Amino acid sequence: MSSTVGKVIRCRAAVSWEAGKPLVIEEVEVAPPQAMEVRVKILFTALCHTDVYFWEAKGQTPVFPRIFGHEAAGIVESVGEGVTELKPGDHVLPVFTGECKDCRHCKSEESNMCDLLRINTDRGVMLNDGQSRFSINGKPIYHFVGTSTFSEYTVIHVGCLAKINPAAPLDKVCILSCGVSTGLGATLNVAKPPKGSTVAIFGLGAVGLSAAEGARIAGASRIIGVDLNPKRFHEAKKFGVTDFVNPKDYDKPVQEVIAEMTDGGVDRSVECTGNINAMISAFECVHDGWGVAVLVGVPSKDDAFKSHPMNFLNERTLKGTFFGNYKPRTDLPSVVEMYLRKELELEKFITHEVTLSNINKAFDYMLKGESLRCIIRMD
Amino acid sequence: MSSTVGKVIRCRAAVSWEAGKPLVIEEVEVAPPQAMEVRVKILFTALCHTDVYFWEAKGQTPVFPRIFGHEAAGIVESVGEGVTELKPGDHVLPVFTGECKDCRHCKSEESNMCDLLRINTDRGVMLNDGQSRFSINGKPIYHFVGTSTFSEYTVIHVGCLAKINPAAPLDKVCILSCGVSTGLGATLNVAKPPKGSTVAIFGLGAVGLSAAEGARIAGASRIIGVDLNPKRFHEAKKFGVTDFVNPKDYDKPVQEVIAEMTDGGVDRSVECTGNINAMISAFECVHDGWGVAVLVGVPSKDDAFKSHPMNFLNERTLKGTFFGNYKPRTDLPSVVEMYLRKELELEKFITHEVTLSNINKAFDYMLKGESLRCIIRMD
Ligand SMILES: NC(=O)c1ccc[n+]([C@@H]2O[C@H](COP(=O)([O-])OP(=O)(O)OC[C@H]3O[C@@H](n4cnc5c(N)ncnc54)[C@H](O)[C@@H]3O)[C@@H](O)[C@H]2O)c1
Ligand SMILES: NC(=O)c1ccc[n+]([C@@H]2O[C@H](COP(=O)([O-])OP(=O)(O)OC[C@H]3O[C@@H](n4cnc5c(N)ncnc54)[C@H](O)[C@@H]3O)[C@@H](O)[C@H]2O)c1
Ligand SMILES: [Zn+2]
Ligand SMILES: [Zn+2]
Ligand SMILES: [Zn+2]
Ligand SMILES: [Zn+2]
Repeated sequence: MSSTVGKVIRCRAAVSWEAGKPLVIEEVEVAPPQAMEVRVKILFTALCHTDVYFWEAKGQTPVFPRIFGHEAAGIVESVGEGVTELKPGDHVLPVFTGECKDCRHCKSEESNMCDLLRINTDRGVMLNDGQSRFSINGKPIYHFVGTSTFSEYTVIHVGCLAKINPAAPLDKVCILSCGVSTGLGATLNVAKPPKGSTVAIFGLGAVGLSAAEGARIAGASRIIGVDLNPKRFHEAKKFGVTDFVNPKDYDKPVQEVIAEMTDGGVDRSVECTGNINAMISAFECVHDGWGVAVLVGVPSKDDAFKSHPMNFLNERTLKGTFFGNYKPRTDLPSVVEMYLRKELELEKFITHEVTLSNINKAFDYMLKGESLRCIIRMD
Repeated sequence: MSSTVGKVIRCRAAVSWEAGKPLVIEEVEVAPPQAMEVRVKILFTALCHTDVYFWEAKGQTPVFPRIFGHEAAGIVESVGEGVTELKPGDHVLPVFTGECKDCRHCKSEESNMCDLLRINTDRGVMLNDGQSRFSINGKPIYHFVGTSTFSEYTVIHVGCLAKINPAAPLDKVCILSCGVSTGLGATLNVAKPPKGSTVAIFGLGAVGLSAAEGARIAGASRIIGVDLNPKRFHEAKKFGVTDFVNPKDYDKPVQEVIAEMTDGGVDRSVECTGNINAMISAFECVHDGWGVAVLVGVPSKDDAFKSHPMNFLNERTLKGTFFGNYKPRTDLPSVVEMYLRKELELEKFITHEVTLSNINKAFDYMLKGESLRCIIRMD
């Protein structure tokens, strides 16, 4: 048993003291895990738009000082009372949304929106005692979405940790803990394109490219990538995208352009932009009779999805998804296996790598739109 | 072989000479069936809202004089060139939408929206030669949705005829040729409520009650009927409806009322009103994580379905359906069998019966909201 068990660990973390200001590497104290909690040594983490969004804190309740980070991989250091599924040494992926295995959602075959551990971006504390496990000189530093992986050690609810095959390289599979699984699952679990079908992907960021990767794995015959930014098209070829449409190049709505390209519409579409017009186009570009459109992007508060009801009556389906409909504990281990069997390619998502001391560079790459995923090594 | 084969048949039909004016029983000439057509002796027909809607002809292209009628059952009198699946004496249900078995929709497992024979309410002629098979003194009388069953004999494309078990009583199963199958299939084929689930039905006309019948057959534990007309509630009990909600009785949106009754929302909902507000409520009243809403009602031209995209992202599904997703030739025979096995009850839908001479009474019953289905006997 590790000598740190039951004790406070002092380690390095990238602390965000103020909205939009560079993170600062600090020595933090990480308290031992309480009931149903696990303390994890993070080895690799990555930066996702959601971190940047809440770090900028435009429009949401600012919660500072805070430790961001939610895409990561690590090894269990110690476990709190009542934790039986994990033990020190287990390899894990932290996930921003959990699986208590006990609520109506967890018991439903269809849902992954756990009542107890569903994402909560306002909460900066642990559920057990309403306190933070991080502090600097006794002053609390807040958590982010229950993961806070920009720290060498962090404390996470057991329901937010997927135990994975220890043979998996953590510097690669860490990106499965958010964006890649979101896009991949949107296609494989929700859109479910039959082999040989046509799929349109709206938005070619990391999430959209993961959705394209899902379509490639499913054996789609044609993958149409739609983005307003033509720079995205070059990279997208590596992800199996066969056709490119920039809505700016046409005078008519992009759904009409796609209908003409495909003799009436695509079989499936996946929207990964967060833009309301793209959501409407993604729905209206699927074929009548059998088309299925899936929404992934997070909309603004005041957006309204709007379409003529006849578009539904002509036998189109519209679904939304959250974290690719994966139940984190139950399903993520098999996504890791998919990578180990070389069905899923992860390397092509990783465009940059920095050490924890240089974490602010990862923010720069993302803000400039240069990176898909930048891995942050903790050592 | 019948002596009428290849000859014009003179018989009685209820002709609609002018929009909104009582039908007139006339002697009409019915030409023999041409290639891929079948001449059918109609024994029973019923009146559906769609007949009344196009007879009133408010807002659509008026096509008169015309023979309405599309819910019916009959016996094949003779067949035209190329018809191999039907022969004189076969029992059939005419259907307003067809199945050519050759187009992309017919070949798809998911769609029933045949490219060749999809409903066309403007066309008053047969596809083969662009002419009508009905005439009075040489003057054409137009067809309606390819069926025109308010006539003792009618000519129908073979793709719009379902061959059924001759043991089935035609005065009962005739109502399967439109409204009842539409509602039943919306629940059984599209909403697919798991056993024990909760289902909300919006609109308790014949279509909504058929959707409720589907929920009863599927083993729903609770069926919530929603209608603005409290008169509909009494009848609905016979169809397994367990709870009633009249939106007029509440100050808040009916989706909130239903969410409170069901701890967050129903598992499935089926909208059978044609009212846009009901469509939105039907979607928003399903539970997040797994809820599925199905639209059946035909909206107005200028309606817009509107909802916040988060309602989708929280893992709700919205689908539309046409004729309950049944492929007429492939699937209707098995719905007839479901009735013969006494799983599906049809008698409770039939509230009135008249002879062809009194067909205008059937219109009165429907316009006054007194009937669910009025059977018209041809003899
Ligand atoms: N990143 C995650 O982990 C995650 C998880 C769940 C949901 N989401 C949501 O998925 C969406 C995509 O995430 P991402 O990280 O890939 O973002 P991203 O910003 O890297 O990519 C979005 C892409 O959409 C394009 N776009 C914007 N408007 C468009 C329009 N109208 N038509 C076509 N293309 C358009 C942009 O040019 C951009 O290339 C976001 O809304 C995000 O909130 C993300
Ligand atoms: N009848 C058919 O064969 C058929 C086939 C396909 C589609 N449809 C469509 O299905 C719908 C229902 O058909 P029907 O024959 O049962 O009609 P109907 O008029 O008998 O029944 C509709 C019911 O909806 C109720 N209603 C209207 N607005 C409502 C609201 N906002 N909230 C709750 N209830 C409301 C009405 O009071 C009425 O009882 C129609 O739109 C029709 O076009 C019908
Ligand atoms: Zn749960
Ligand atoms: Zn993320
Ligand atoms: Zn067809
Ligand atoms: Zn009808």
